[in-house]
Amino acid sequence: MASNTFGQLFAVTTFGESHGPAIGCVIDGCPPGLEIAPRDFAHDLARRATGKTRFTSQRRETDEVEILSGVYEGRTTGTPIALLVRNVDARPKDYDELADTFRPGHADYTYWQKYGIRDPRGGGRASARETTMRVAAAVLAKKWLAERFAVSVRGWLAQVGDVVPDLPPDTAIDFDVVESNPFFWPVAAQVPQLEQYIDAIRKDGDSIGARVNVVAGGVPPGWGEPVYGKLDAELASALMSINAVKGVEIGAGFASVAQRGSGHRDEMRLDGFASNHAGGILGGISSGQDVLASIALKPASSILKTGRSVNRAGEEVEVRSKGRHDPCVGIRAVPIAEAMVALVLMDQALRHRAQCGDVGEMKPLIPGSAQA
Amino acid sequence: MASNTFGQLFAVTTFGESHGPAIGCVIDGCPPGLEIAPRDFAHDLARRATGKTRFTSQRRETDEVEILSGVYEGRTTGTPIALLVRNVDARPKDYDELADTFRPGHADYTYWQKYGIRDPRGGGRASARETTMRVAAAVLAKKWLAERFAVSVRGWLAQVGDVVPDLPPDTAIDFDVVESNPFFWPVAAQVPQLEQYIDAIRKDGDSIGARVNVVAGGVPPGWGEPVYGKLDAELASALMSINAVKGVEIGAGFASVAQRGSGHRDEMRLDGFASNHAGGILGGISSGQDVLASIALKPASSILKTGRSVNRAGEEVEVRSKGRHDPCVGIRAVPIAEAMVALVLMDQALRHRAQCGDVGEMKPLIPGSAQA
Amino acid sequence: MASNTFGQLFAVTTFGESHGPAIGCVIDGCPPGLEIAPRDFAHDLARRATGKTRFTSQRRETDEVEILSGVYEGRTTGTPIALLVRNVDARPKDYDELADTFRPGHADYTYWQKYGIRDPRGGGRASARETTMRVAAAVLAKKWLAERFAVSVRGWLAQVGDVVPDLPPDTAIDFDVVESNPFFWPVAAQVPQLEQYIDAIRKDGDSIGARVNVVAGGVPPGWGEPVYGKLDAELASALMSINAVKGVEIGAGFASVAQRGSGHRDEMRLDGFASNHAGGILGGISSGQDVLASIALKPASSILKTGRSVNRAGEEVEVRSKGRHDPCVGIRAVPIAEAMVALVLMDQALRHRAQCGDVGEMKPLIPGSAQA
Amino acid sequence: MASNTFGQLFAVTTFGESHGPAIGCVIDGCPPGLEIAPRDFAHDLARRATGKTRFTSQRRETDEVEILSGVYEGRTTGTPIALLVRNVDARPKDYDELADTFRPGHADYTYWQKYGIRDPRGGGRASARETTMRVAAAVLAKKWLAERFAVSVRGWLAQVGDVVPDLPPDTAIDFDVVESNPFFWPVAAQVPQLEQYIDAIRKDGDSIGARVNVVAGGVPPGWGEPVYGKLDAELASALMSINAVKGVEIGAGFASVAQRGSGHRDEMRLDGFASNHAGGILGGISSGQDVLASIALKPASSILKTGRSVNRAGEEVEVRSKGRHDPCVGIRAVPIAEAMVALVLMDQALRHRAQCGDVGEMKPLIPGSAQA
Repeated sequence: MASNTFGQLFAVTTFGESHGPAIGCVIDGCPPGLEIAPRDFAHDLARRATGKTRFTSQRRETDEVEILSGVYEGRTTGTPIALLVRNVDARPKDYDELADTFRPGHADYTYWQKYGIRDPRGGGRASARETTMRVAAAVLAKKWLAERFAVSVRGWLAQVGDVVPDLPPDTAIDFDVVESNPFFWPVAAQVPQLEQYIDAIRKDGDSIGARVNVVAGGVPPGWGEPVYGKLDAELASALMSINAVKGVEIGAGFASVAQRGSGHRDEMRLDGFASNHAGGILGGISSGQDVLASIALKPASSILKTGRSVNRAGEEVEVRSKGRHDPCVGIRAVPIAEAMVALVLMDQALRHRAQCGDVGEMKPLIPGSAQA
Repeated sequence: MASNTFGQLFAVTTFGESHGPAIGCVIDGCPPGLEIAPRDFAHDLARRATGKTRFTSQRRETDEVEILSGVYEGRTTGTPIALLVRNVDARPKDYDELADTFRPGHADYTYWQKYGIRDPRGGGRASARETTMRVAAAVLAKKWLAERFAVSVRGWLAQVGDVVPDLPPDTAIDFDVVESNPFFWPVAAQVPQLEQYIDAIRKDGDSIGARVNVVAGGVPPGWGEPVYGKLDAELASALMSINAVKGVEIGAGFASVAQRGSGHRDEMRLDGFASNHAGGILGGISSGQDVLASIALKPASSILKTGRSVNRAGEEVEVRSKGRHDPCVGIRAVPIAEAMVALVLMDQALRHRAQCGDVGEMKPLIPGSAQA
Repeated sequence: MASNTFGQLFAVTTFGESHGPAIGCVIDGCPPGLEIAPRDFAHDLARRATGKTRFTSQRRETDEVEILSGVYEGRTTGTPIALLVRNVDARPKDYDELADTFRPGHADYTYWQKYGIRDPRGGGRASARETTMRVAAAVLAKKWLAERFAVSVRGWLAQVGDVVPDLPPDTAIDFDVVESNPFFWPVAAQVPQLEQYIDAIRKDGDSIGARVNVVAGGVPPGWGEPVYGKLDAELASALMSINAVKGVEIGAGFASVAQRGSGHRDEMRLDGFASNHAGGILGGISSGQDVLASIALKPASSILKTGRSVNRAGEEVEVRSKGRHDPCVGIRAVPIAEAMVALVLMDQALRHRAQCGDVGEMKPLIPGSAQA
Repeated sequence: MASNTFGQLFAVTTFGESHGPAIGCVIDGCPPGLEIAPRDFAHDLARRATGKTRFTSQRRETDEVEILSGVYEGRTTGTPIALLVRNVDARPKDYDELADTFRPGHADYTYWQKYGIRDPRGGGRASARETTMRVAAAVLAKKWLAERFAVSVRGWLAQVGDVVPDLPPDTAIDFDVVESNPFFWPVAAQVPQLEQYIDAIRKDGDSIGARVNVVAGGVPPGWGEPVYGKLDAELASALMSINAVKGVEIGAGFASVAQRGSGHRDEMRLDGFASNHAGGILGGISSGQDVLASIALKPASSILKTGRSVNRAGEEVEVRSKGRHDPCVGIRAVPIAEAMVALVLMDQALRHRAQCGDVGEMKPLIPGSAQA
């Protein structure tokens, strides 16, 4: 499969560079009849957008989506849906002096080694600007999943540096709180502290890592395709493909290393599962419980602090980033991570329907939600 | 792509159930001319095999590989290579009474929900028996990568429960030690302690989680296909597809969450990278440094301790595992994890050659190995 | 996708050489719950088999199918189904002297140029022996299509050399006649003539071309995926991939070249289509009419007449075939062509269900069958 | 693979409807470093364009290509290349009264049956307008193939109705003649006759079928992937996917049916092949000879003559086409057929390089061109 296409049946092909004329995507395989309009993209694109607070990059893009094909009288027709977003605040000149320098921690060196040529303007294809179209494509996936299965996919910031949400274990996340602050943070009282924390890092010319959690509720049992198209395997790939992600966990994740089998395995009763260490996936197939994923994002490498590197001429140089960048890329990763989870679920839903027929032929034996 | 096929150009399709007549695989797209014989599979299959110590399942399989096709006079011909391994120690009767019961922490319930039918004999397709063929297929990948690029892929057990290797940070792993004990443990002096630790858990009728690390040395810069076929994304998928894996890290992994950009980014000098927090991958493309991956394996759910569950009749039941199982599945995961890393690298090597030509057209600017 | 895998969702991977130990296939993505047993393969494999009359090769294979996986208690489980057929009448020695010679009209030269190595025993992978597994895999497809949609796929020999069936235009084919003679010929009275015709060619040490027609009845409207997965495009690929096929037609085929639009287009009335020049496919999607395909098969190149060629040493040589071969490969192509049509329909049925839901949500507006 | 994506490694995804705002494509997997500019598309797009003579549809599109991504400083970078063409002469209103009517011979009925919804404006996605982007994408393929292998891909009109080129058998085609008349006809002296012939049909409100031939010269031996990715199988699929194509032949095609093996097989001497009935492909792999394909195109169904059909309300109706259409769609199919052949060759070239290394490691043993 082409490497800029995600998904097998709900197949999203993205294109575009950070400072080129436009970015866009083509969504192939979307079920027909889904209502969609340009305004439907606004909410999630705004959640991902830069330039709205000092905690994200100062680049200001309008992210207006033009629907070029695949929609007729407000409904998808089953043919490929092309979405186009023009870049309006591109500043390629900012990167002129970096054309021959490989910024440390960036993809500059590896793109050049791979292709022998690279677009140096703001990281080109390697820029997080590309994720705009993942979020746009996922708007259709989220809508179909919600309408057809009442599936919801929601994320939050679960750690920044060493700051963690001040919540008792197993507390349900209040998504009204998450959506009411610029950090997608689940504890309102901590927001001022977080603001101060990130501000200090930003002023220091540095950046900080983060953890993002995503939960998908309402996923019916049966999605996922063993043994190489397992639901967790595809979530891992999807999430790891996001810029700056260095780790992925499903359910208990790395905490399982220190667990015993008697403690880890989620017992089942007729009123549901007794716990959810599995993260809603057993043998690569959804169990009906909430699907839980967690990712680690490295701190952005584009910082004001000078770093040592080399250039194409084979000289050692000092590099200092001048573009507009994020002190904590993890913040904007929340809607992106949701998008990737939604794209995986959408694709798996169609694949399951292909092999096994429409969901609903078999009723879950037990309720999916964990009993706390 | 079919869900039991791994890889796009070096495409491995596996088949077979734990207690069916045989397991096997078909490898399509292998470069022609590679020397291969049945004896070449013995070493890695023995490393993965059960029944040799009390720390793994007591099932005893000979794992003799029959080459059915694709090899002529000891060399691959470019046509599909089929490998067959007969199951000789299958005991399907052990599972008769579990036919209608969903063991907690197993894929019994989800396979049944997905397909409406399931093979209950030892987990059927969901058994780790399937991974035998991943290891077998990877023997060809490892061989080609070694001959053509001097790439080596090696793993070790990096944690069991709360026991970690007693090694100073950044100590190079001694693979002679790793290969000389049944745990793939890198510190010889700790082996007796580990033996005792796992024995105690086994006698307690329980199991324990583990962490496995894999390093691929010699990977040239340039492998990996942004943005959805990134090297790290495919490693994540490949590793998460292994039975019991709940988490995947590349390089610094979850430790990045608490890092600052100035500390995380690996600076470059003409004599090489100053560190390797990236795990050898930048922007989804190999940098020439060692590729580092780490995985978390949950404790096996098949234990002697009784667990609560439900059956197909919709009754609550108690389940106690009687089959032959592993107190720590993480041990045998070492060669399996190596295999998946090798399969990813092999596939990416061919994909890189397709788009960009044979490696060697461009020389790495700097040495790949990190300066400690 | 791997080049020895056919189909995207009902994915069949075949392996094996003509004179190697075995041939086989893995079927991935089969809907669960389909009843299947080894005896189900016998009928179609016998139709394709050699050695039963003097009009096909004298090689005698039992073609006994062993089911290695994916079936439990007589039903498919949704996991990969591996089928194995041992070669029992292989005579690799027959080909010893051809190891260095490129037979004209064969794949010897091209395999060697592509791979730099080739298995010379009876054509190796390029032998029609490989099609055994296409026929075997299609047994499952035919069965599911018949049970679920009452789709039938049937072929017949429509021309041999310049002999055509003596039937008035638009006469329905009598498949009882087709199945009652060794030529799959639709006119019983012509069989002796055909016998004589082919015998004469055989005795002359030569071979003859043929045309095979296939009709799929009962195909519901809606199958096929524009614009590159069109039903006719995939039929063309599937049929052209059969050994010796040099041309494919859908519906009126090359006769359309001389037609006018007013004559070609199939008018529609409420009682059905007025004709079927389209061959049951419009815009790449099935219309509900019979799907009609026709293929041209070249005369076999393995004949007793001496031919001129070259060898690996770069010398000009004379070649005379000694293996066991077919005077008219078109005869045995009938079940193979049916198999490929069935595999395409099966795959498209699943793909349609994935995107658009189970067939039956929309009822055909008009009956599918053409009014003669 | 997504159904609007063509190719595995040189993967072209097209989008857009006939009377929507734009059409476009994304080319993924293009080798880096290829020089390309918007002007490079003009020649082939003009050859395919309508509105220039009375023998094609009167729709006038400028077909100006905007490169949105994947090109930096005039060279491809290895990242996805998006091309956009705005529709400037769309007249959706022309089709208002056809919104509920299924035109005979069109995809109206089948799109509606498949998707339950359809874009009725000029056939929507089923329009030949879509092929614009195939031609555009193939410009890159043709360029790379020409620069790297001196491969040329050229087509001509080989029959219209019952008019065939007045040329002795085996005469080489003079492409200067082909390119100097609006019919891509290889015999200058026949052009006035052809003009008259098609004019008469046009004035009669009717249309006529055609045959198009394509030859690819310079193809090295070794391209093509048995057994399902054979070069001829992929050509068949690619060509059959073109609007109105009803048949595909490789080499001798349907003429093989009446041939004998002794006559069909192309003998080999050290100075080359003695003939080219195989069409340059043996066992699905290129032999080094010219690759020859021929296709049948049905007469357009959009004609002024009234036809009988049905509408969505289930009523019988009379339909008369009012849009702007082609009296012989075969004419414009010449560059489209070339494009599809080029896309297949390009993809196969990369796939061959992936598995077997760069062409050139093995030298053809004999010259490829047939000795006439």
